[in-house]
Amino acid sequence: MAPPPTDLSRLCLHTMTTRPWPLEEAVGRYARAGIGGVTVWRDAYAHCGPQAAGNLVRGHGLSVVSLCRGGFFAADSAEGRRRAVDENRRVVDEASELGAPLVVLVCGTAPGVPLEEARRQIAEGIAEVVPHAAAAGVRLAVEPLHPMYAADRSAVNTVGQARAICSEIGSPWLGIAVDVYHTWWDDRLADEIAACGRDGRLFAFHISDWLSPTTDLLEDRGIMGEGRIPIRQIRGWAEEAGFRGFLEVEIFSRRLWASDQAAFLAKITKAYMAHA
Amino acid sequence: MAPPPTDLSRLCLHTMTTRPWPLEEAVGRYARAGIGGVTVWRDAYAHCGPQAAGNLVRGHGLSVVSLCRGGFFAADSAEGRRRAVDENRRVVDEASELGAPLVVLVCGTAPGVPLEEARRQIAEGIAEVVPHAAAAGVRLAVEPLHPMYAADRSAVNTVGQARAICSEIGSPWLGIAVDVYHTWWDDRLADEIAACGRDGRLFAFHISDWLSPTTDLLEDRGIMGEGRIPIRQIRGWAEEAGFRGFLEVEIFSRRLWASDQAAFLAKITKAYMAHA
Repeated sequence: MAPPPTDLSRLCLHTMTTRPWPLEEAVGRYARAGIGGVTVWRDAYAHCGPQAAGNLVRGHGLSVVSLCRGGFFAADSAEGRRRAVDENRRVVDEASELGAPLVVLVCGTAPGVPLEEARRQIAEGIAEVVPHAAAAGVRLAVEPLHPMYAADRSAVNTVGQARAICSEIGSPWLGIAVDVYHTWWDDRLADEIAACGRDGRLFAFHISDWLSPTTDLLEDRGIMGEGRIPIRQIRGWAEEAGFRGFLEVEIFSRRLWASDQAAFLAKITKAYMAHA
Repeated sequence: MAPPPTDLSRLCLHTMTTRPWPLEEAVGRYARAGIGGVTVWRDAYAHCGPQAAGNLVRGHGLSVVSLCRGGFFAADSAEGRRRAVDENRRVVDEASELGAPLVVLVCGTAPGVPLEEARRQIAEGIAEVVPHAAAAGVRLAVEPLHPMYAADRSAVNTVGQARAICSEIGSPWLGIAVDVYHTWWDDRLADEIAACGRDGRLFAFHISDWLSPTTDLLEDRGIMGEGRIPIRQIRGWAEEAGFRGFLEVEIFSRRLWASDQAAFLAKITKAYMAHA
């Protein structure tokens, strides 16, 4: 079990977590709360562009931890897959402008494409984007998504699968984002995180909690401590594997987005100290 | 890929699939449709007892395929775990009275019990029930549930985990129920089904479909062909592994339960021929 955090310097928030706040307000609030980093979603800079967004974040003394998100490589036509690769190269360029060292990849899947074939297409798509990312000095992190998203959001559903893709491509610019929400159920998780560490591929660590009952497959995540995930234990595995990066809070929740966001932020920082 | 079914003789319906129908009506309708078997849920015979239910099913020329369900072995107290074992012995007795050769186990989990510990408790609970099942001539099938149920319904979430429990206990009376809804996303599924066959443990095969989007974690399954699961391909794996049993339709769906059940049954038999 990892020791509790002593401050908020390794706490990072995804802009999506406090979705109702525009980027300017979010960054100001995070900075005043003493949070160390921000992972910026593309929609958060739609109004100002990635470069201005990066300057804004750094201007408040915060680190840009990563850009969310690229991916969605699977498609039922070669043209669709080519467009996805082009789009991911653009995402890498945006990460450069934002000053983000990492792009998170939600790998996608496609109706009509068998799961096995989608997995193949994902590996091929990533392989095509990696040289562009390496040239830009931007790392890519495959984020395995919970098996309940295998039909629509990601055909990569375990850390083991993500690791196989990384091994196949074999670039130091490609690694893995482990999100406890997506992976906590996996009886091989401890071993897989250790293997990610040995491979030098543990690039990011996302936290939130699994509510019981969960009322929506997409937008009903909990704050750390509200649910069933042994977050501190899993963080311990990551740190034994050498991970020293930010602990990124990524919560999608209609319930919490509908609540007062300042109070929600206060709950997050408190829950971070108690459960992360 | 398995060849299409040529008739409905291997089609089995779970009474839960047509939940609005009382057992008497369900069995009559199934028989008239030419369906071969029924898996009886405990609630379906609450009014008449398991023995009368078994006679009713057989009286219509249908096979009793299994009893759903035992399980829920994990608990946060020794007393709770002992009660679960007692309850499962009662379920085995009911299966005997019903004339069901098999009890399906939904293994459970418990708030406050870490996942790893819950998995241990499940293996211990099953081990305590197996001798009673063997004495009664009733087989037990561990049904791995989708990882989205790890917080509340089952800490056994892959065929691999179920197989490990079976190997540990090592009784010919203990095997596995593979449900395509719970397992289709698993990149190791083909290998695991083959291994179940080699171990002589592939006891049951459940079908339905995964809808995209899925609007409810529990009660939004689809009819075969409505969703993303390659059912016939997975059935092929099961049959290559030696499985010759019933193909059991287990659909929980508020949408379909709210529809005309006779029309729903007609859709099921048609979808079975086309997609199972």
